[in-house]
Amino acid sequence: MPAVIVMPADAPALKIAATKGYGAEVILYDRYTQDREVLGAQLATERGMTLIPPYDHPHVMAGQGTAALELVQDVGGLDVLLVCVGGGGLISGCAVAAKHLAPACRVVGVEPEAGNDVQQSLRRGEIVHIDVPKTNADGAQTQHAGRLTFSVIRELVSDVLTVSDAQLVRTMRFFMERMKLVVEPTGCLGAAAALEGALPLRGQRVGVLLSGGNIDAERYAKLLLEAAR
Amino acid sequence: MPAVIVMPADAPALKIAATKGYGAEVILYDRYTQDREVLGAQLATERGMTLIPPYDHPHVMAGQGTAALELVQDVGGLDVLLVCVGGGGLISGCAVAAKHLAPACRVVGVEPEAGNDVQQSLRRGEIVHIDVPKTNADGAQTQHAGRLTFSVIRELVSDVLTVSDAQLVRTMRFFMERMKLVVEPTGCLGAAAALEGALPLRGQRVGVLLSGGNIDAERYAKLLLEAAR
Repeated sequence: MPAVIVMPADAPALKIAATKGYGAEVILYDRYTQDREVLGAQLATERGMTLIPPYDHPHVMAGQGTAALELVQDVGGLDVLLVCVGGGGLISGCAVAAKHLAPACRVVGVEPEAGNDVQQSLRRGEIVHIDVPKTNADGAQTQHAGRLTFSVIRELVSDVLTVSDAQLVRTMRFFMERMKLVVEPTGCLGAAAALEGALPLRGQRVGVLLSGGNIDAERYAKLLLEAAR
Repeated sequence: MPAVIVMPADAPALKIAATKGYGAEVILYDRYTQDREVLGAQLATERGMTLIPPYDHPHVMAGQGTAALELVQDVGGLDVLLVCVGGGGLISGCAVAAKHLAPACRVVGVEPEAGNDVQQSLRRGEIVHIDVPKTNADGAQTQHAGRLTFSVIRELVSDVLTVSDAQLVRTMRFFMERMKLVVEPTGCLGAAAALEGALPLRGQRVGVLLSGGNIDAERYAKLLLEAAR
């Protein structure tokens, strides 16, 4: 079926090209000056299309939660599950799955230092809005959690930690060197928290979600070199 | 048990560090001036150790052949299997496995253009020795096939093709961008032949072995950037 995808203009060129390659129409917007929600709603109305939000929808949350569902089904109970946090879709779905299958598992979110809106929200008990954060983790440049995702996060997520951009690129390089996996900085959030000692994990069964590898080769190369310094 | 690994001094630093990290003693030699066979035999005698050659041994060939064994067991019969060729251990073991499980499968080797000793050997019907080739495919810088590997190659391998260094780095970049996999240039040989059109494959069931991801982050970054030009 026809698909129109609204993406920030500074998304990885690779991601834009791949999306078009799969047959979608891509509409770009400026994430610093335009409102994606408004743009999406407008397009849906004008063209009579169904709007699928990136995270704040029960089906999207449930779909993203299958990552934790499959993980726990494969490896059994976990003590801790580390999940990257942008708008909260992945972590809310994963928390539902993990808590159902392994009630003792602590689900911990990880955000980039510069974009810790969900950490702030969790501590304040209400959704905090921030400016678009400047961080290497472009997939976590969200300004606030969703209404639905935050209600699940508040109930099921134990804590939200942060890691620095330097920790993210070191972790990205670790995946390249030792796991032979290309993981974008956003996808490294959970692993960075584990590898860089953001929380005590010794002796525990730890699950970590890696959420993507959408990064341009040029930028990837630059960050790999940066990580060596 | 204690292990002593003889490696060329210009092997990826990452590979040397990882080998030491797993507990081995690493002895470096200069691949352009020293004879590895002599060095290995000498060490084995002096220290009373068992010599395990890199490719020219039935157990090594059989062990490496489990790659094709598992592939065909997983996906069923193939029309073509593309395998990178250095000393011929991987391809000879894989040819035995593939031909046994899928007799109609053509096993095709792929070498770097600069180091096509096995292609020459196959065409001439005897083992051809070449100077240490200069190529990005450092895992295929062998000067000649083994006595045992060549006897299997001659019997079971249909052809040996070559690809250029530029084709290898483009393929390496393809794996980074679209498969999220770090594959070293040597490991890209078979895939480069397929993706760059070294042989007609349309409509056929094609198996490709990717044989490694041992590459330093700095060099990987540099080659990724080079591939864009």
